Amino acid sequence: MKLETTPPRGMRDVLPVEVELRDRAVSIILATYRRYGFCRIETPALENLRLLLQSGGGENEKLIFKVLKRGAKLDAAVSHEDELADLGLRFDLTVPLARYYAHNRAELPDPFKAVQIGPVWRAERPQKDRFRQFTQCDIDVLGEASGLAEIELILATSEALMSLGLENPRIRLNDRRILTAIASACGIPAPRHGDFFITLDKLDKLGRESVERELREAGLGADVVAKLFGLVSPSGGDGTSEATLDRLNRIGASVPGAREFVEGLATIVATVRGEAAGRFGIEFDPALVRGMGYYTGPIFEAMHAGYASSIGGGGRYATMLGRLLKQDLPACGFSIGFERVISILMQREQRGGAPRPAPSPLALLIESPDGLAEVLAEAGRLRRDGRSVSLMVKRKNVGRQLDDLARAGFGGYAMYRAGQGALEVKPLVARTEAPR
Amino acid sequence: MKLETTPPRGMRDVLPVEVELRDRAVSIILATYRRYGFCRIETPALENLRLLLQSGGGENEKLIFKVLKRGAKLDAAVSHEDELADLGLRFDLTVPLARYYAHNRAELPDPFKAVQIGPVWRAERPQKDRFRQFTQCDIDVLGEASGLAEIELILATSEALMSLGLENPRIRLNDRRILTAIASACGIPAPRHGDFFITLDKLDKLGRESVERELREAGLGADVVAKLFGLVSPSGGDGTSEATLDRLNRIGASVPGAREFVEGLATIVATVRGEAAGRFGIEFDPALVRGMGYYTGPIFEAMHAGYASSIGGGGRYATMLGRLLKQDLPACGFSIGFERVISILMQREQRGGAPRPAPSPLALLIESPDGLAEVLAEAGRLRRDGRSVSLMVKRKNVGRQLDDLARAGFGGYAMYRAGQGALEVKPLVARTEAPR
Repeated sequence: MKLETTPPRGMRDVLPVEVELRDRAVSIILATYRRYGFCRIETPALENLRLLLQSGGGENEKLIFKVLKRGAKLDAAVSHEDELADLGLRFDLTVPLARYYAHNRAELPDPFKAVQIGPVWRAERPQKDRFRQFTQCDIDVLGEASGLAEIELILATSEALMSLGLENPRIRLNDRRILTAIASACGIPAPRHGDFFITLDKLDKLGRESVERELREAGLGADVVAKLFGLVSPSGGDGTSEATLDRLNRIGASVPGAREFVEGLATIVATVRGEAAGRFGIEFDPALVRGMGYYTGPIFEAMHAGYASSIGGGGRYATMLGRLLKQDLPACGFSIGFERVISILMQREQRGGAPRPAPSPLALLIESPDGLAEVLAEAGRLRRDGRSVSLMVKRKNVGRQLDDLARAGFGGYAMYRAGQGALEVKPLVARTEAPR
Repeated sequence: MKLETTPPRGMRDVLPVEVELRDRAVSIILATYRRYGFCRIETPALENLRLLLQSGGGENEKLIFKVLKRGAKLDAAVSHEDELADLGLRFDLTVPLARYYAHNRAELPDPFKAVQIGPVWRAERPQKDRFRQFTQCDIDVLGEASGLAEIELILATSEALMSLGLENPRIRLNDRRILTAIASACGIPAPRHGDFFITLDKLDKLGRESVERELREAGLGADVVAKLFGLVSPSGGDGTSEATLDRLNRIGASVPGAREFVEGLATIVATVRGEAAGRFGIEFDPALVRGMGYYTGPIFEAMHAGYASSIGGGGRYATMLGRLLKQDLPACGFSIGFERVISILMQREQRGGAPRPAPSPLALLIESPDGLAEVLAEAGRLRRDGRSVSLMVKRKNVGRQLDDLARAGFGGYAMYRAGQGALEVKPLVARTEAPR
């Protein structure tokens, strides 16, 4: 029977050059977040299925990979697959964080600032750039009710993105409660707010005309739609502090119930701008929706020049934490779109825009084991200097061998013969394309 | 319905202080292995169940966590759980490596030197220090038939262990083919070699007397047992190069068919010793068995002073690689017992034997959002110096708050009032035990 060597459907192998980039990115992100006082935590990949199914994860709950119970009985009485499975692979890092905090709270600082970087699994229909196993990268502040949480999350994430080489990120900021106040001010009844937000969320993608048409088709009057766009449509401003604060004030003055939340955002904008000192931007965007599912206060998104979709997002949320803790706890998080960021960085490296940070590896070719000690001593010296060195036996077709090494990323080689003295390192350049 | 907050049975949450140690260990190990020319690879956590079940993984195949097929039909016709499941969580990193190499060979160097560090899952009966999810840390050389593979594996692993602070590791070395030659020389028929090796493997744990009794009970004569122990029992030597080589020569001379393999080991021992220059040891140990399951040549184990069981092991092996590639390929690997090493390092840190490598985090307590920009600027300066700094709101009971911070690992704090000028950082020391 032939065995398949492709990875399971919708999953992928990561080649060495990308693993190196991913490892580097994780180190940089972690170092930044640790300077901001976040601690990394780790939870198992598997959680009890009951927890996952009651997490309020919405659509994601339908995408859980369920693990067969050990020794489950397979008889006619088994009528539902949940009787066969008691564990599931996590579909995000937020449900595990809530369980972790509830379980380990006595040993954690208060407020607790957590970093999580790890794989999650979703049985989605595989498509380009969307995989069934992918890495998420979240920071969360648990137990801090003030805007300090949002400010530190936004500063830390912006610094992390810049450290990765994504210069000048731009943060879009809104508050779920301002959106609600705007909807109410436009006369949209509360039960229809959800649908309204879903439509508004399409503004970036479809443009104003399509969204306007959709809102009219949903029964909103021309006056309501006009009022709405007067409040939320892109300011056309220059993104300066003044334009943003001006806009916030306008909404605070004209939308009943919005003032308190507008003041909160104004503090966040002013403080973050002060720290950013022009290295990154933050703008109030009253049309920012971010799904809305479980957000309860400020929401934000990170953008990068030249990319239409966001490279990170988050906000203040209500999770199952309250249920697990039997008391409410303020929570706020920011997630970097790790896979998206890696694909941007990979494209840059392939275009040659970013040099490899480490010197490329050297191959030391030996003809026979004679004098192996000498060549090992030489390799040891190079390795102590931080070079990556690989010893290998010289093949008969050495031209082909050097060509293969160049294609595999080796940057130089040296031949070694016993007793020859110092090594002469020569550069390696690939002459041909890799065979497929 | 009450939701359980404990992790699934046999799995565990990792607290921040241990995650930091694990991350540090991974970085150190990877940096060392990369200097030796190994490339890290990553494969999905899930593999096709058919691959896992035909991997020759022996007992481990029974411990696979199987994932329910999407949309599997649950009717009376389903007679076996394998009809319900098509994916499984990997139980080791060797089967995925073989599949990865077979699938991606055209894009990989030859020989290929791989590092893998990642979780594996086994549905074993949970017990102390044995978990159902744990991390493995393997290096493998694929495509190198000479002893160069063993030498580089042993050097790289010894360096990695020393970089972790496990000074002066000791490598035990044997060859599966020498063991076979010894068994034959003692007159043990080939079909009984397996049982014989299993018994011999207990020598470390049970001692000579018990093993002798077991061999006698299995039907070996007193003369055979005496001859055997003459060959394999601990030399009582001083572990010097001379003692080890002397012993190898004695076996080479007295055991028919062993000479060739003895010479291979002598080269490995001499070369590794030359490079080690006394910083770590390597000894020939003809009683080393290492399970034997799939090893075909040299086998080795890493020991550390004060610990009876090994902290790493490996050898030359035949895997399913040949079957997947439809051609034989030499393969050799060395695995660090990652969880064991972490538990040794954690014990050391708890005993205070190893200082935290990074300065402990600082807490900046603010009384109100006034002057937040000033304190953020101060935090920014400290962070650019590499300090970990966390801003937080001062609580009413500040004594209790400082105490909590000290217990959570903060090493200092400063109070901040608007316009006060430079921060005065004070040390934090825990006064009480953490509540449980």
